[in-house]
Amino acid sequence: MSESKKVVLAFSGGLDTSFCVKYLSEDKGYEIYSVLVDTGGFSDEELKAIEARAYSLGVKKHATISKTQDYYQQCIKYLVFGNILKNNTYPLSVSAERIFQAIAAAEYAKEIGAQAIAHGSTGAGNDQVRFDMAFRIIMPEAEIITPIRDLRLSREAEIDYLKSKGVDQEWHKAAYSINKGLWGTSVGGKETLTSDKYLPESAFPTQVSKTEAERVILQFEKGELVGINDTAYSPVEAIQKLAEIAAPFGIGRDIHVGDTIIGIKGRVGFEAAAPLVIIKAHHTLEKHVLSEQQLYWKEQLANWYGSLLHKGQFMEPVMRNIETFLADTQQHVTGKVHLTLAPYRFYVEGIESSYDLMSPVFGSYGEMNNAWTGDDVRGFAKVASNQVMIYQKISELNQ
Amino acid sequence: MSESKKVVLAFSGGLDTSFCVKYLSEDKGYEIYSVLVDTGGFSDEELKAIEARAYSLGVKKHATISKTQDYYQQCIKYLVFGNILKNNTYPLSVSAERIFQAIAAAEYAKEIGAQAIAHGSTGAGNDQVRFDMAFRIIMPEAEIITPIRDLRLSREAEIDYLKSKGVDQEWHKAAYSINKGLWGTSVGGKETLTSDKYLPESAFPTQVSKTEAERVILQFEKGELVGINDTAYSPVEAIQKLAEIAAPFGIGRDIHVGDTIIGIKGRVGFEAAAPLVIIKAHHTLEKHVLSEQQLYWKEQLANWYGSLLHKGQFMEPVMRNIETFLADTQQHVTGKVHLTLAPYRFYVEGIESSYDLMSPVFGSYGEMNNAWTGDDVRGFAKVASNQVMIYQKISELNQ
Amino acid sequence: MSESKKVVLAFSGGLDTSFCVKYLSEDKGYEIYSVLVDTGGFSDEELKAIEARAYSLGVKKHATISKTQDYYQQCIKYLVFGNILKNNTYPLSVSAERIFQAIAAAEYAKEIGAQAIAHGSTGAGNDQVRFDMAFRIIMPEAEIITPIRDLRLSREAEIDYLKSKGVDQEWHKAAYSINKGLWGTSVGGKETLTSDKYLPESAFPTQVSKTEAERVILQFEKGELVGINDTAYSPVEAIQKLAEIAAPFGIGRDIHVGDTIIGIKGRVGFEAAAPLVIIKAHHTLEKHVLSEQQLYWKEQLANWYGSLLHKGQFMEPVMRNIETFLADTQQHVTGKVHLTLAPYRFYVEGIESSYDLMSPVFGSYGEMNNAWTGDDVRGFAKVASNQVMIYQKISELNQ
Amino acid sequence: MSESKKVVLAFSGGLDTSFCVKYLSEDKGYEIYSVLVDTGGFSDEELKAIEARAYSLGVKKHATISKTQDYYQQCIKYLVFGNILKNNTYPLSVSAERIFQAIAAAEYAKEIGAQAIAHGSTGAGNDQVRFDMAFRIIMPEAEIITPIRDLRLSREAEIDYLKSKGVDQEWHKAAYSINKGLWGTSVGGKETLTSDKYLPESAFPTQVSKTEAERVILQFEKGELVGINDTAYSPVEAIQKLAEIAAPFGIGRDIHVGDTIIGIKGRVGFEAAAPLVIIKAHHTLEKHVLSEQQLYWKEQLANWYGSLLHKGQFMEPVMRNIETFLADTQQHVTGKVHLTLAPYRFYVEGIESSYDLMSPVFGSYGEMNNAWTGDDVRGFAKVASNQVMIYQKISELNQ
Repeated sequence: MSESKKVVLAFSGGLDTSFCVKYLSEDKGYEIYSVLVDTGGFSDEELKAIEARAYSLGVKKHATISKTQDYYQQCIKYLVFGNILKNNTYPLSVSAERIFQAIAAAEYAKEIGAQAIAHGSTGAGNDQVRFDMAFRIIMPEAEIITPIRDLRLSREAEIDYLKSKGVDQEWHKAAYSINKGLWGTSVGGKETLTSDKYLPESAFPTQVSKTEAERVILQFEKGELVGINDTAYSPVEAIQKLAEIAAPFGIGRDIHVGDTIIGIKGRVGFEAAAPLVIIKAHHTLEKHVLSEQQLYWKEQLANWYGSLLHKGQFMEPVMRNIETFLADTQQHVTGKVHLTLAPYRFYVEGIESSYDLMSPVFGSYGEMNNAWTGDDVRGFAKVASNQVMIYQKISELNQ
Repeated sequence: MSESKKVVLAFSGGLDTSFCVKYLSEDKGYEIYSVLVDTGGFSDEELKAIEARAYSLGVKKHATISKTQDYYQQCIKYLVFGNILKNNTYPLSVSAERIFQAIAAAEYAKEIGAQAIAHGSTGAGNDQVRFDMAFRIIMPEAEIITPIRDLRLSREAEIDYLKSKGVDQEWHKAAYSINKGLWGTSVGGKETLTSDKYLPESAFPTQVSKTEAERVILQFEKGELVGINDTAYSPVEAIQKLAEIAAPFGIGRDIHVGDTIIGIKGRVGFEAAAPLVIIKAHHTLEKHVLSEQQLYWKEQLANWYGSLLHKGQFMEPVMRNIETFLADTQQHVTGKVHLTLAPYRFYVEGIESSYDLMSPVFGSYGEMNNAWTGDDVRGFAKVASNQVMIYQKISELNQ
Repeated sequence: MSESKKVVLAFSGGLDTSFCVKYLSEDKGYEIYSVLVDTGGFSDEELKAIEARAYSLGVKKHATISKTQDYYQQCIKYLVFGNILKNNTYPLSVSAERIFQAIAAAEYAKEIGAQAIAHGSTGAGNDQVRFDMAFRIIMPEAEIITPIRDLRLSREAEIDYLKSKGVDQEWHKAAYSINKGLWGTSVGGKETLTSDKYLPESAFPTQVSKTEAERVILQFEKGELVGINDTAYSPVEAIQKLAEIAAPFGIGRDIHVGDTIIGIKGRVGFEAAAPLVIIKAHHTLEKHVLSEQQLYWKEQLANWYGSLLHKGQFMEPVMRNIETFLADTQQHVTGKVHLTLAPYRFYVEGIESSYDLMSPVFGSYGEMNNAWTGDDVRGFAKVASNQVMIYQKISELNQ
Repeated sequence: MSESKKVVLAFSGGLDTSFCVKYLSEDKGYEIYSVLVDTGGFSDEELKAIEARAYSLGVKKHATISKTQDYYQQCIKYLVFGNILKNNTYPLSVSAERIFQAIAAAEYAKEIGAQAIAHGSTGAGNDQVRFDMAFRIIMPEAEIITPIRDLRLSREAEIDYLKSKGVDQEWHKAAYSINKGLWGTSVGGKETLTSDKYLPESAFPTQVSKTEAERVILQFEKGELVGINDTAYSPVEAIQKLAEIAAPFGIGRDIHVGDTIIGIKGRVGFEAAAPLVIIKAHHTLEKHVLSEQQLYWKEQLANWYGSLLHKGQFMEPVMRNIETFLADTQQHVTGKVHLTLAPYRFYVEGIESSYDLMSPVFGSYGEMNNAWTGDDVRGFAKVASNQVMIYQKISELNQ
């Protein structure tokens, strides 16, 4: 036999990618280099267990690529700067993570000189497109192998196949498909396949255990969360710490209804306590320290950024330009945000910042002041209504 | 003495506009035609009491102009179609109402041939600009009289002046300035003058009296709310009915931080249970029945509409064009939205609509289907990543 | 053999679609219903010749569908309302026509109950996607047959095949690929395949024969061109008449560089005298009669409309909403535009309209007037600079 | 008499600002610090003559501030990066220069500790607002003095006043008001005060003297023009050199119709050969080297930038963010652009760039290639039309 081809497989340890290992190595003669890209969703034990599973299935080599810091620095940071909630609801938890993992897997494949890359996505969702696109952009000459999508096997057929190859284990069928990551956890299944039903309490990964309202102070520095309740954290730690504090309130849950990359509508539940709290806090701070124009254009660019990210277009060059823009707007986004967390909800009480434009030095809204006179405003209103006044007159003359 | 000039005064019955009546009639020799434009914020008794007050102060004539239906048809309807929340928060309760009242007052002045129009706004807020602009656009030749803004009298000075004219009554000084309307109630004062404090429970007009979660079904027809829990209502009634149901939960409260027309930042609290529930329900329904492109452009135009409305630019001709656009998008926005209301929060459970694009007939997100093959998506991803792939290659060649 | 399948073929009479007739009928056993959708690019003789060719090749039935008026009413009209020039250059001549033809062909196929639809586009351009999309949207259950794209035959191979089937004629190989339509003619080949060369004079369909400048007056009525030099025309006639007048000047030529639907960059030359003159005239008229806000949003929506149209997304529901918006903005776009045409160039001299907002009644730019005072503008400037003034101060305090 | 107040006066040496010197110093007792900000529109002799005039009128001190390089680096550069033509026509020649001069004058006033600042603008145009805003933002506490606007004197009255003060000279009354600057020259008067007339040849500052077409090659480096016909220049020199080459063709002339800051419509003629040629060349290069997404967002932000600049909002903080964005997009905008200049017109022949995305390596538009198959495009079109296909079906089901 001639030498077999190197294939890098994005491996999660689940049924689908386990099937891929066996099928590609034993039936198709590939040499499997499995890779797991960790972006903050796995514990050390989980990572070790996945590695062990990979070797037990017969991979040539398994690599665990730790990308949590990069994921924050190259992606989540901008989701915060942009206050990005897809369709005003969803913090793009899975969208962001998956494309980031796909890119890292493709770069790994390029680095080790693989001839092919494989993923275990089905043909029904967004992830397949994210993997395909990242692979195609980074390794255009590589073959892209997608056994699950192409063979369209049922779960049972996959289990039977693995059994036939000597892999006889219990494959846990969860009631819901859960994707846990640093920037939130998605929950799909049952109710989310319909349009009219909400997820039951039990479907959410964190159960509600806190009942008493709790105040929390978030400290931002140039747009990044760097402290909670007067303790300093690195941004990644701060996200994790805030999740610990807020998730037991059942905060940050909802169902996102959106347009998939493949044109159909889809619904997915999520639990994203930290992202929701951080974004609302950050956004409120921005409303105090940025100009109206900055807020407007940030929103335009950030929504587009979120939309392209969602569609797997993270490598589109405009994304780098938008990131540069967003970072440039954060110079004054420094200060404290006071919040109250309570079961299933939270609200921002207010902010403190030395960049606050609502400084009473310049006149308070609704209060008397000396920064301008009634005549100034009268003149302003007159000039600002000039065009419409003329338009109105001209309209009347034409009647 | 020669004949006195007719002035139309936007009259609320409060201290400021009462001062205006006396000052303009007795000191300045104007003939006062007071007018109150009702857009759904007053009971019949309140309207009668205001009329009586006007005559007791010596107006020549008082008119109560009922504009609630027009206000809904010409303005609120589009706020719903556009899911408009200023800065993702505020349903523009006061902004919408005030400009609408100013326009009606100006049209009344034009109709009766007044030489001047007057309002009692101070020089510190947005309302002065809204009145000035509406007056200027509709009656450019009329004098605009603003005694409160120009004289800058203290509250005490106004009371003393009125006493000197024989108007000796108790002028209630509320802890908060409250503006109640069909589309929500604003609450300003004390905490909203700072950046860091939230309003106390007691500041909100409706106190929380419901503690048990309650399910509610909203029926929309071409974007308009026409039924609640299987009972049909006219849209105005439906808003009022929903407010009755939802307000006792303390739903729809928040503080809006925004940019005033005069350039400073301002904060205002609000309670707007019905608007918040309607908008979230309507928006969710739209996510199911409109295309991604429709959702995108609706959001662009609606946010702009809200922004111009806020700035008193309701008569700008583009507003009519945007309304036409928004109405045109609502043809499929028909269906039921299921919600759960609970103390201080609510969530959408799901929707039912015969226009739902998430029909399982065409494949469910994340589930196997026959509407497209893996190869179709593979081709899609290949072509959709073509440009970035080329960009990447060209970048590498230039390194 | 059982009954053969009905296939509708978009037929132009050229080599590619002639090949398709023979190949699909004789090799594949289909019953061919050829169709030519006329959108203003063919003379009666050309249409007859194409029909004769179709029958001589053995189609079961040939249909000529006349869609010129519909094309204007449902598409070109909005390109004028929107002043649409793709990338500020190209009037979308071919893009608009092709998708319109594809839709008409698909509707015809649906009407006659065809099982399949076919087009002769290659795999290298935009047209294939336009046909595919229109076919798929209107007849999702129909098979889409694309022999030229799939077989990838060379020109010579196609000619040889036809010869083998008894079709032995001279197939003219033009130096440039020319697509003539009501809204302009595209010219591709040689120089347009490179980035650095311009088309020679001889490549353009209309040779320059006029040397003396000529004045022309265009009459618009609610945005539509309805008269030239004081003669009334229907809009379609007006476009044709203006092309006669302007094309011999060599006006409206350029090379468009753009992004194709399939992600690569492409260049195409064009000659579009009437579209360029109409759009510049219409746009100038609009600058006089519309408000700044209307101009801004028209541009946003129109550019998007052009972009979706280019990508074959003419049936996307947002297109109807945008058309409604654009039509709604045209109520005042009535008046005359004076132009001078000269060899290779033209310019707008000015406009006359009873809706002109530049009426000297309201003050002329740069001239003294009585509509506002210096103090009004002083107040305006003060209030309009308020936020930046505060921002500046706050920035200094933080240094 | 006590000490007089220091006032900085933006001085041009013309009638209006000469009047201001006399009036403010002799009638009002101010100490005049005249300042002229040179942004490339003056020769050394002109600058010296203006200085001499200032002293002869009795200023305390005259300063000539040279800002040409800053003007390019801080403003014109971004107008090129953004291909900014206001209303698709006008390169903002005067708008950009005036606000830049106003800012420099205000900074000078701040530096020397003036108590007041003055400008000689009338109450009829945009410049008054630009000066007012720059002064107010940079020196909010200073008095802003505007004698011409406030006194509303006729030209004759000003001349008589100056005579009465011993300034008895011929004040040339030009047929047109001309503003010459590095980025183009504006021409206002007579015809531009109407809507229907064009400027005569004689009104344009540069008369047409070249009759033979001429080819020119522009070299861009990261978006900046750095060479012409293989000779290297600094960007400012390159603009000046290109103006010398192109202006004698009568290139870059037109009339801009636009919305003034004060709400009325205005028309202004201009001659801007270098800006028009540079922008078209730069834009064409960008169409080859940037992605579709980059082109889209550049256009959005650049148009807004131009609009804010026009309105005197150069100091708005979002302007800095947009500049950062625009600069970030220019990394690949390097290459040569070939053009042909001819009397009254020019066209781009093509471009050469190592960043050209239209590389034939990846398939040529309209030509056969191996980068994707027909099936890939078929899959693409199928998935890309999915949503509209579903929408269509759902619509039919509801009929």
